[in-house]
Amino acid sequence: MSFRPILLREAIGETIRDLRARSGRTLRDVSGAAQVSLGYLSQIERGQKEASSEVLACVTGALGLSVGELMADVADRLAAYESASMVSFPARLAA
Amino acid sequence: MSFRPILLREAIGETIRDLRARSGRTLRDVSGAAQVSLGYLSQIERGQKEASSEVLACVTGALGLSVGELMADVADRLAAYESASMVSFPARLAA
Repeated sequence: MSFRPILLREAIGETIRDLRARSGRTLRDVSGAAQVSLGYLSQIERGQKEASSEVLACVTGALGLSVGELMADVADRLAAYESASMVSFPARLAA
Repeated sequence: MSFRPILLREAIGETIRDLRARSGRTLRDVSGAAQVSLGYLSQIERGQKEASSEVLACVTGALGLSVGELMADVADRLAAYESASMVSFPARLAA
């Protein structure tokens, strides 16, 4: 069984999607406010595209957040995935 | 006076450089361990290049860290910059 750790762009995408959904905003609304194309924002949310630092600043601004606030959530999400993977794959601890 | 907030790649670069220096490792050592070219790693540390999620995973692995641990430090660094910029530019608070 192979174990692929979550990538940063996946954690960033999931976090942006959750924050956007929690604020009741649509992809179209946020892409317009951030001046990022809807298709590109959708790919970022699905972890399929790396967002440049400038695009990330625009998207977080459109969500009313700072990049630091976003990254605090992303760090928490990564930590949760990492600790779950340690529980699921105890062999890694003994390696 | 223009205010340019710190970009994510700059915070990531500074954090990697600090963590590397604190562990007494050279650029050459970490670039070899991460299988990332020395010039590219140096540009990442100076915030001049976006590191892909895969490269970031290799570099943090070479430093003995998880991506989540790196990003927790990056989030703290961003928060410190953001709160410093609020003190320096109080007009932003009133806007």
